[in-house]
Amino acid sequence: MINRIDHIAIAVQDLDAALGTFLNVLGCDPGSVVIEEVPAEKVRVAFLTIGESHIELLEPIGEDGPVSKFIAKNGEGMHHIALATDDLRNETERVTAHGINPLGEPSTGAGGKKIVFLHPRQTNRVLLELVEPNHLSH
Amino acid sequence: MINRIDHIAIAVQDLDAALGTFLNVLGCDPGSVVIEEVPAEKVRVAFLTIGESHIELLEPIGEDGPVSKFIAKNGEGMHHIALATDDLRNETERVTAHGINPLGEPSTGAGGKKIVFLHPRQTNRVLLELVEPNHLSH
Repeated sequence: MINRIDHIAIAVQDLDAALGTFLNVLGCDPGSVVIEEVPAEKVRVAFLTIGESHIELLEPIGEDGPVSKFIAKNGEGMHHIALATDDLRNETERVTAHGINPLGEPSTGAGGKKIVFLHPRQTNRVLLELVEPNHLSH
Repeated sequence: MINRIDHIAIAVQDLDAALGTFLNVLGCDPGSVVIEEVPAEKVRVAFLTIGESHIELLEPIGEDGPVSKFIAKNGEGMHHIALATDDLRNETERVTAHGINPLGEPSTGAGGKKIVFLHPRQTNRVLLELVEPNHLSH
């Protein structure tokens, strides 16, 4: 089952500046922020905690990754919604049975979590990600 | 303080069709869905519960409301993120002190909750809403 919103991802040009903005808006502890690079996705990411969820800020690395292309086309803004599940494989099969197709095979995202994206054509142009948190998850 | 993500709002053309899609994705109980009209915003909305948050589907009523204009310009997709707080006035003052300005005065949103939107120009083109849940809130 889907348990909670894991994160909402926002594509930004300048991670450090955006981090300052969202720390101000959320009023959360700068010490709780986790920053990492995800070379496979060509992004540098920052996670801010809010309740049981996170805001994930995505800064492109280079100019040919998916987030770089997203910003070139759409500008900065909301990029995707990630839904947490305890069983990625089962949930992927469940939604596929409803005609909502994965975008490729499951892969490893930030924090070493198993993830899969779903095709936004079937979900009102909202890019959804299923994510299976692990014991290392923030 | 900001306690949690209250909801993520998604602009859709056809509320009933989108509701079917998101019930399928989230696998949640159709009986838990709340649908209402918010004439002041010229929308019909559906709330689906996911953990401590909601997905809010927004269908425009008529052609001159903000969501109708959003869809005409951008197509369907993610519209805003709402952050729950126990003290809307205080939080609005707090973020304003950081140069993040409200879009107009606080008003009454879905469920009779006090809400205020923040100008997306200061938040990486992400439209944020502050919302103060009440005892009637779903």
